[in-house]
Amino acid sequence: MGDYKKMWEGLGIDIEKHDALCDALPELFGDTYLTQENRPEGMNYFNYVVAEVHGARIEELEKHKENGGKVVGTFCVFVPDEVILATGAIGVGLCSGSQFWIEDGEKVLPRNLCPLIKAFTGAKVGLTCPYFQSCDLLVGETTCDGKKKAYEILEDYTPVHVMELPQMKREKNYEQWEDEIKLFIKEMEELTGNKVTVEGLKKAIDLNNRKRRVLKRLYDLRKNTPSPISGLDSLLITQIAFYDEPERFIKQTEELCDELEERVKNSKPNGKKRIMITGTPMALPNWKMHSIVEGLDAEIVVEETCIGTRYYENEVSAEGETIDELVKNMANRYMNINCACFTPNYGRTEDILRYAEEYDIDGVIYYNLSFCHTYAIEYNQVEKVLKDNDIPVLMVETDYSEEDTGQIRTRVEAFLEMI
Amino acid sequence: MGDYKKMWEGLGIDIEKHDALCDALPELFGDTYLTQENRPEGMNYFNYVVAEVHGARIEELEKHKENGGKVVGTFCVFVPDEVILATGAIGVGLCSGSQFWIEDGEKVLPRNLCPLIKAFTGAKVGLTCPYFQSCDLLVGETTCDGKKKAYEILEDYTPVHVMELPQMKREKNYEQWEDEIKLFIKEMEELTGNKVTVEGLKKAIDLNNRKRRVLKRLYDLRKNTPSPISGLDSLLITQIAFYDEPERFIKQTEELCDELEERVKNSKPNGKKRIMITGTPMALPNWKMHSIVEGLDAEIVVEETCIGTRYYENEVSAEGETIDELVKNMANRYMNINCACFTPNYGRTEDILRYAEEYDIDGVIYYNLSFCHTYAIEYNQVEKVLKDNDIPVLMVETDYSEEDTGQIRTRVEAFLEMI
Repeated sequence: MGDYKKMWEGLGIDIEKHDALCDALPELFGDTYLTQENRPEGMNYFNYVVAEVHGARIEELEKHKENGGKVVGTFCVFVPDEVILATGAIGVGLCSGSQFWIEDGEKVLPRNLCPLIKAFTGAKVGLTCPYFQSCDLLVGETTCDGKKKAYEILEDYTPVHVMELPQMKREKNYEQWEDEIKLFIKEMEELTGNKVTVEGLKKAIDLNNRKRRVLKRLYDLRKNTPSPISGLDSLLITQIAFYDEPERFIKQTEELCDELEERVKNSKPNGKKRIMITGTPMALPNWKMHSIVEGLDAEIVVEETCIGTRYYENEVSAEGETIDELVKNMANRYMNINCACFTPNYGRTEDILRYAEEYDIDGVIYYNLSFCHTYAIEYNQVEKVLKDNDIPVLMVETDYSEEDTGQIRTRVEAFLEMI
Repeated sequence: MGDYKKMWEGLGIDIEKHDALCDALPELFGDTYLTQENRPEGMNYFNYVVAEVHGARIEELEKHKENGGKVVGTFCVFVPDEVILATGAIGVGLCSGSQFWIEDGEKVLPRNLCPLIKAFTGAKVGLTCPYFQSCDLLVGETTCDGKKKAYEILEDYTPVHVMELPQMKREKNYEQWEDEIKLFIKEMEELTGNKVTVEGLKKAIDLNNRKRRVLKRLYDLRKNTPSPISGLDSLLITQIAFYDEPERFIKQTEELCDELEERVKNSKPNGKKRIMITGTPMALPNWKMHSIVEGLDAEIVVEETCIGTRYYENEVSAEGETIDELVKNMANRYMNINCACFTPNYGRTEDILRYAEEYDIDGVIYYNLSFCHTYAIEYNQVEKVLKDNDIPVLMVETDYSEEDTGQIRTRVEAFLEMI
């Protein structure tokens, strides 16, 4: 990473503490990523993005703010990026994927809580995430009890707008979500001073759809046997999609996909077991599960998670001539995400079965962050459906620590032998 | 308990397993309750209700059903009992307060989950709760992730209707809750074949308000120093309020309160520390915390919980000449319950401060069932406000097991010495 000390100081970063994070990341990344053999050339760009994750991109955000722009931080795939883009603001996903932030998070939150929530809260409270420090507004949602209540604590530190996501999928719930999107538009208009126009919103819808499309292209390429790209690399790309400048991200990912298409033509069977991950999100730099699985004789070819299919599946229709019509289109697209926060959530098991076939899966790993109740309980239903369809499944509940890595490896190893 | 084997068999109870529960309860009750000195005479009725908890009351439910009536089980103070009563059905709280049911609950639910949820699920799955077996319908709500998702599992065993409780308290949320109450009326009308009328609903509102009023009378009596009744006995009465026939319950509690009023006239200071419990519910027979505290030199004089003030505070206005108006009144009353499921939930800290003054509190014990995220996170805010007001607070996170009893006793003892 370049020298950004002055910028970080300006952002109120706790420099000394943050240095410890900056020192650890390159080693973790090197060990996990750069040791992979025969990586696509196109990954170089993404390597660069990680190397500069708290530097070059933050510099762009700061430049945007110097020109009067606003930066908005989000935690969840339900927050409609289209609205942020349509008001000329930049949206970024927030730091939440490292054990590094847990200690500070536990100063204000109970220990028995999902590591993702403890991490993002710790990143803000401990002043060690430049993304948080760049944000003019954080946008939360009510997708789980832990996040819902943690935002109340974050509000002591920074402005927060919370969108109330309905918990069911009846017709009136779609209308409720439309109304929440309208409230969010109002909030963003007030923050930026820019009015959302039909033209502007259509442009934003188009941009976001193109981002979804290139991710779908990447995922579709993984349906090949063998996949032309590792699960680790794919995961990294999707993680970066939450932070990166969208046009550049699309261009770089298209180029990578071109390369992968060539690879497919000359690929030879590698005999590896094909694994689907389903469950809770893996925020940057949480590569733990992928690293374990791909360190063994297996490749992860699809993630039915929020840093996976749930992020890019289904586009927002740009048809319509009024804001109301476009908002309706957005509500329809977002409400169709099959998150375990909904009751019931049968769409998710249907998705999993469809992916199992499309990606020619040998087995499923149900990845559950500790204390995430919705996904943990929904395992009961997913397990039943998978067993009914003779698809092997392994449940792994874990956090960000490395303590259980050996134990998980042993279990995955046994699972791979069995399937 | 009388001989109800035949009735239980008819209900599909697992007799052998259930016998183990029936054998354990009298001893637990005897040790916890009957060892108290100088109990009010009026407690005899409630002793009887506990002794017959799976017998005499179930017999009443069965009789009601033989006459074509319906029985509805609920888990939460947000479900409007008025609607159940107005369709001629009987509403009962459901088994969820004993370690006994945990093992069966963990067969279908994750271990890292609130014991209350594991217990009620286990009670149904293991066929050891005659209340569950008597029910024609269970009514759930979306007050927390754990319950919300556990109802999906219960649906495999019995019909469930889930009410979507909003997660905020804006004007539109009140309207959403009105709509949920209307859907619940429709569901109950279909189940019972009885139409809800204005007159019938007003009667039900009146009955429920009278029940709230007598509980308020009981709690108001506890404001005296010393309280004329133990926290243990008060807790038992409120627990029974969820199961008992309302008119009988009101009559018996009024009589008890008459007796307590006489006691107050002749009471002498006992020097005991006055404690408020705030936090998560204590379902029958969960007497653990009260038993520990009152085994020491302290008395619990108020519970800011769902088996306490949140259950009876605020009446439903019976003013209005249409169902819509009465539904609006109900929505207003229920939405004003200050549950940690709401974001934000500042009303709760206001309640706690008010009670601290009204009940002349020496200290607060924040009682948190393990893995209940909403209340665990909200502790941060409550602790801050209490400290700002120089009110000592002790946080206790626990489940239904007896393993931590000694440790909690030591902590409470130290707390009582300090305040």
